[in-house]
Amino acid sequence: MKSINDQGGKAPAEYFSGEVNIKKLLNPSDYNTIMVIVSFEAGARTNWHTHSNGQILIVTEGVGYYQEKGKDIQLIQKGDVVEIPVDVEHWHGASKNSALRHIAIVPDSSTDKTEWLDPVTEQEYTSDLI
Amino acid sequence: MKSINDQGGKAPAEYFSGEVNIKKLLNPSDYNTIMVIVSFEAGARTNWHTHSNGQILIVTEGVGYYQEKGKDIQLIQKGDVVEIPVDVEHWHGASKNSALRHIAIVPDSSTDKTEWLDPVTEQEYTSDLI
Repeated sequence: MKSINDQGGKAPAEYFSGEVNIKKLLNPSDYNTIMVIVSFEAGARTNWHTHSNGQILIVTEGVGYYQEKGKDIQLIQKGDVVEIPVDVEHWHGASKNSALRHIAIVPDSSTDKTEWLDPVTEQEYTSDLI
Repeated sequence: MKSINDQGGKAPAEYFSGEVNIKKLLNPSDYNTIMVIVSFEAGARTNWHTHSNGQILIVTEGVGYYQEKGKDIQLIQKGDVVEIPVDVEHWHGASKNSALRHIAIVPDSSTDKTEWLDPVTEQEYTSDLI
């Protein structure tokens, strides 16, 4: 049986900044769903990206940030369920001083298109007073 | 933002035994996915049931049991990811002495059929040496 406490392997460097590990919790074809556990060290984050079917995050440890393009950075923490709308450009990751771990779920994975965009710059990451 | 620490309201008594609370974490039509958090007091459990699209459980607190018809009861605990196959008759719930809380996810909810069957009898619940 898999566990959300599993660490997994290094996430692909072209889509993330900093130290990020990722582990698949499901074989996507079994449930037409991507489900992974992602562990970000403090300061680590995804690039900006979009999902054509949206995404749900469930924060299982720590404190982090979530931002949709053009909106303020939101603080996210253990227990939070983050609903990411279809095709909205966004990023997520750890806060400056705390690691973050979240489950990430992409529904209807057989039809989803995830588009990876630019890294989140230091200026974008530190732009809010968090 | 919703939280997996939310308690929710009483689960429908016709599908469960004992004290069970349930809260929706998503509006199913937003992601074609049912996602709920379910809290079982010690001894509480679902009825036997099936899901035509299968189901994934993520245990967030406590210790409980999961059983597929004709197989042994499996102990499940905090962190475990339980993959319930399509159309397999099963039940899940708390252990005798510990509460259990899990996220339950049904993929492709627009096409899922969940069939609720008989309660899990005391004899079935206590049949294994757990």
